[in-house]
Amino acid sequence: MRKQIAVLASGGGSNLQSIVQHLASLGTGSPADVVLVASDRPDAGALQRGRGHGMHVVAMDREQRTSGMLALLARHAVDLVVLAGYLRFVPVEVTRSYRGRLVNIHPALLPAFGGTGMYGHHVHEAVLARGARVSGATVHFVDEEYDHGPIIAQWPVPVFAHDTASTLAHRVLEVEHALYPRVIQQLAEGVISLGADGHVHGAPAHLAPSYFALRPDPGAAVEGIRAVLG
Amino acid sequence: MRKQIAVLASGGGSNLQSIVQHLASLGTGSPADVVLVASDRPDAGALQRGRGHGMHVVAMDREQRTSGMLALLARHAVDLVVLAGYLRFVPVEVTRSYRGRLVNIHPALLPAFGGTGMYGHHVHEAVLARGARVSGATVHFVDEEYDHGPIIAQWPVPVFAHDTASTLAHRVLEVEHALYPRVIQQLAEGVISLGADGHVHGAPAHLAPSYFALRPDPGAAVEGIRAVLG
Repeated sequence: MRKQIAVLASGGGSNLQSIVQHLASLGTGSPADVVLVASDRPDAGALQRGRGHGMHVVAMDREQRTSGMLALLARHAVDLVVLAGYLRFVPVEVTRSYRGRLVNIHPALLPAFGGTGMYGHHVHEAVLARGARVSGATVHFVDEEYDHGPIIAQWPVPVFAHDTASTLAHRVLEVEHALYPRVIQQLAEGVISLGADGHVHGAPAHLAPSYFALRPDPGAAVEGIRAVLG
Repeated sequence: MRKQIAVLASGGGSNLQSIVQHLASLGTGSPADVVLVASDRPDAGALQRGRGHGMHVVAMDREQRTSGMLALLARHAVDLVVLAGYLRFVPVEVTRSYRGRLVNIHPALLPAFGGTGMYGHHVHEAVLARGARVSGATVHFVDEEYDHGPIIAQWPVPVFAHDTASTLAHRVLEVEHALYPRVIQQLAEGVISLGADGHVHGAPAHLAPSYFALRPDPGAAVEGIRAVLG
């Protein structure tokens, strides 16, 4: 039984696109399908993309964003909820019902540069203002607090002296597009799960950023990159 | 004129050792010498190491750790102060007089896992408790606040599922030993400096962790590793 995924997005939906493409590349071996794309903004590019793929799309009204969201997800028999640049709070009844089946990607290395107000370009501006030399992307389970849930995977990205929020955002987004679909795949396959103890189980080695380890040798680092990039 | 370095350490001094070895490897081309090793603990391994290298060593008393530190550094004509696992607060008159010439290394990616109480194994325990998948090392200029000054260089390190604070500490320390001496070299050479605007200038490309960039290609990533490891 393939899992049914809902993607929630407020923006252009480039992460949605990378997820759809990755699952499509798995062919009949894909463990999941995106069946629903929902947005708080009727003009979100993500809805257009969803339509283009023949998925159900919903421009959620206030009720559907809040007390009605759980019913909306149930109506489409959604197994996994994927936040992809969704800027609204997810109702607590949804985070509870979808515990371990609701994920988000944050464009920095949490716990750095997360929390209220830290979204989109604000994140990258804060990174540059602090003078950090490393940023990255974090995939995590969603709980009742912004950017707080158990971390599934992180991937570092260098920050360069000449970076603007825009160039850094672009570099991080590239990594998001490589990382997020693979995490979602493995979540759908049951390789990754959230234990009752609140710990993430089974995050596979090749999603750990072993490719930048100093050891065992540079060849292994290259293998790590290849393993991730497929 | 070679710069004169003081290393302040509370512990075993493995970072001191890596700095001394790196500068020695530069031979007559070295831009600096470690002339003084000082500790707040008379039994610190760092003092033994310093003695072994024929350096001046000082087990600082309360006065030398506080109001007398500036005089101690002046007596040895110290140009650069390097904190290497020094667990005491550095007096404000020293951080002011040595603005841009006083550096520290922190065993995590600041601003994550820094601040009061975050030293030694406490850092790595906090990283594991949060479930972070990436940690690292940060070299920064020291100002009046713990782990707060301008960041010079950062290097990411993977965190694995089977890690303990001890295995993670070991992995981060390896990176510290590769990174810190090179930053100190380039600080002594004047390649890196702290601007009046509070920004770090001239942090060279090969100290940026470009080796873990997804692009331009895996070969470049390997070159990046080689550039850093020499």
